[in-house]
Order: sequence, then structure tokens, then C-alpha cells
Amino acid sequence: MKNERLIFLTNDDGYRSRGIAALIEVARQFGRVVVLAPEEPQSGMSQAFTMSRPLFLRKVREEEGLEVYAFTGTPVDCVKMAFDHLLCDRKVDLVISGINHGSNSAVNVLYSGTMGAAIEGSFYGCPSIGISVDDHSPDADFEGAMRYGEQIIRTILERNLPTPLCLNVNLPAIPADQLKGIRVCRQTAGYWRERFIRHEDPRGREYFWLTGEYVNSEPEAEDTDEWAMKQGYVAVVPVQVDMTDHRRLAELTEAFE
Amino acid sequence: MKNERLIFLTNDDGYRSRGIAALIEVARQFGRVVVLAPEEPQSGMSQAFTMSRPLFLRKVREEEGLEVYAFTGTPVDCVKMAFDHLLCDRKVDLVISGINHGSNSAVNVLYSGTMGAAIEGSFYGCPSIGISVDDHSPDADFEGAMRYGEQIIRTILERNLPTPLCLNVNLPAIPADQLKGIRVCRQTAGYWRERFIRHEDPRGREYFWLTGEYVNSEPEAEDTDEWAMKQGYVAVVPVQVDMTDHRRLAELTEAFE
Repeated sequence: MKNERLIFLTNDDGYRSRGIAALIEVARQFGRVVVLAPEEPQSGMSQAFTMSRPLFLRKVREEEGLEVYAFTGTPVDCVKMAFDHLLCDRKVDLVISGINHGSNSAVNVLYSGTMGAAIEGSFYGCPSIGISVDDHSPDADFEGAMRYGEQIIRTILERNLPTPLCLNVNLPAIPADQLKGIRVCRQTAGYWRERFIRHEDPRGREYFWLTGEYVNSEPEAEDTDEWAMKQGYVAVVPVQVDMTDHRRLAELTEAFE
Repeated sequence: MKNERLIFLTNDDGYRSRGIAALIEVARQFGRVVVLAPEEPQSGMSQAFTMSRPLFLRKVREEEGLEVYAFTGTPVDCVKMAFDHLLCDRKVDLVISGINHGSNSAVNVLYSGTMGAAIEGSFYGCPSIGISVDDHSPDADFEGAMRYGEQIIRTILERNLPTPLCLNVNLPAIPADQLKGIRVCRQTAGYWRERFIRHEDPRGREYFWLTGEYVNSEPEAEDTDEWAMKQGYVAVVPVQVDMTDHRRLAELTEAFE
């Protein structure tokens, strides 16, 4: 089966998570599956990678068409390890990161370990997808994500969409049957404001625990991922990595002359 | 001195680093300075933030016009802590992150803790700058970064440039007198390829240590930060956070119909 497809999976919740088990089930329909995911949960790790310490890799499962590895690095480290070491002589057809517990829409794409891994995957010449559900509960319902994930994978593979291609896929926390379909849209403008919970540890030392809320800067706009999810759509944002603010190049060139 | 300016400094190399000492020296010329930086080096932390554990803050220095705090979080946590807790009732005129040992030009902007903090700072309505020198050595020469940093700060404050404004400033590792001036430019397209160094730990367990090299996808382009630095310029890239690939919205809308 020389032409069998190879799908690489990772996430930021760790190799034992329910989300990756769901993705394995979906991805196996399309070919061989290799999973290389963090040993422990790594939420909020963004595009972080590890240069200051050594990392450990172990194989945790192997069966026909499936290999699963756990790695002590970040989600991005997992992708680098997979492509630059483990799979370096094999063509990968698709990278999928997720299914994440919690939305990575809007500015969350910047902070997300799930999307950090998906973005990293897109640097290796294959299409990549990050899939997240707007539900942090351990028993989040992944049926919609699996159903639409399958459709998105099928479309990418059958249409052979040109690379680089990185999709940020986010689903609202509603039952699969109530989802209205896929909406291709743009990243909502907004930011987080944090509230630090203050407490004292058992030795009387003050500590802070970060918590916050997202502020949507454009709640009325109807072409954004936040809007699409609120309306019951599966939001799909194509992601690129040029962060240059091209509109300000001329103004700043003049200012610094 | 009600109108005295307030400059907030942070970095990813930790509050004890030479880079932040250099920034303090520069920034104090412009007003009061508050530093809140990581307890320990946090390179490669990107936009990572900490939700899984409590964080500890301590004041390490206070004198006329200067306060320095150390925080156990990431660079982004430091910015959130400063704005949402420590400084919440004070107007901040400028955020500066750095001076980093090592360039954050090109795609490094995605991985950089220095730029993660600068980007985070720009979410709080004040201009922000990340400054990095393309020299990882502990005794890197910061004279050029201090000189041009001062010029950039002065320009931003005197011209009152509109926000959001986030500048990624990178200097080549050459003496200050050889720098040719400021070049406003765009982020170079490219990616990293890693080589994992394999060894065995004292107990015979295999480990991996990440190392890699940057691949410039457009070495001939003359409007990029990589090109500017190679020519001896101080590269200044305005950074924005919409990662949507707007050029592909129509094509993908059609594909997923």
C-alpha cells in the first residue's frame, strides 16, 4: 500500500486526551495515523518550543495503521520532533491538532498550543488543521467536531488544496444536529482582560492565579469567527503567518526618516 | 509630576539580564520606569501564558523613578500581571520588551517570548516595542540597540503615533558606529528546520535536544527584515495580530460549500 495516506495528529491536551482519541477515530478512515503528542496537558503554550532542556520520547501504542508517541515537549516541539526526526523520510498528507477543549477563535489563535502545533505543521509543506470546541468540560461533546472534521479532511484531500494551508476550525458547544454548516470567515478583533485571583499558600506566601475574559472589539461584524460560532456555524479561518502590518509601512518609514 | 511618563519594561531573559539593565538606562531618560519580568529565562515562550498553576510576584528593587518586580510566569503573564493588577490605575505611555540576546526577525516573531510580551503590551492601548540583537553571547554588544532604541522611543513619544502600534526591532551584531540607520520593512518569509541532538542520560535513557537552522524563503527580496539586517540596518517591522489569510477566503468558501 505505497499510496496509503499518512495523517499526523497532535494536540495540546496530551496524548491521553479524549480529543485525540476522537481524532484518531476520524483520521483512520483516511490512512495510516501517527500521533506524537505531549506527555501532559500544555494549554496556552502558543508557538513555544524548548531549547533549554532535553526532551524524552516514548512509544505508547502500536497497532495496524496506528502509532502513538508521547513527548515531554510543547505542542510545537511535538511537530518538530515528528517531522524532523520520526517521520523525516515519509510524506505526510495532513496534520491535525486537537480536538481542543475550549475555543481557539479570535485572538486565541495567538495563545493556543493547539493552533501553535497546527501552524508549525503548515511549515512542512502539508495542509494542517486545528480543531477546537467551545467547551472546557472534560466530557465535552465532540460529535460535531468529528462529523465536520471528517468533511473538512475529505475536502482538503480530495480537492488537493494548495499549500501552505492552515485552517483554524472552531465549533460552538451545541449538539451536532443543530450545527448549521461550515462558515469560512476571518479572525475576530479583540483581546483578553485578566483578573488575577489572589490567595495565600499554606506558608502565607501570596500567589496569583490568572483568569480572564475575552473582549470582542467588533461584536456586530458578520464575517468573523466569533459571529459564525454564535450563529451556530462551524467557523473555519485560514491562517497565515506574516504578522507585518503592511498598512503602516509607509507612515512609519516617514516617521523614522 | 502628574504628567511624568510611565514606561513599562519586560523581557524573556529574566529580570537579572543585561538586556533589561540596558533598557532601564535608556527608558529612565523618558520618565518613571516599572519593570516586571520573569524570575528565570523564558526564551522561546512565544505568546504562552499560565493557567495551570499559581504565580508568585516579588519586588526586587525600588528607588526614585524605578521599581523592579520578578514574576514566576511567562513574558506574557508578566505583561498581564503588570497591566491588569500592578498598574491597573496608571496610564502607561510605552511598553518595551528586551533587549533580547538573539534575533527575533522573520518567523521568529511567532516563537519569541520577547515579541510575545511586546504584542501583549500592544493590547493595552499603548505603543509597544520589542528590541533584539542578533547575538546570543552573554556579553553581546547592546550599544547600538540602546542608541537606536532611544531614537525609536523618542520618535514614538514625540510624534504620538497612533495605537495599536507594535514594533519588532532587530539589530545585526555589528558595532553601533557601523549601523546604517533604521529601515522600516516587512517580516521575511521562511521557517526553521530542526536537528535533534540524541544522547543518553546517566541512566541510559535516550534524550533529544532541539537545535535548528532558519531557512530564508526569499533571500533576494530587499524589503524584508532579514535583508535589512544583512545590509547593516536596524530592521523595524510593524506587527499586527490578524492572522487571517484574507487572500484565500473566497477560494475556501467555494471549496467548503
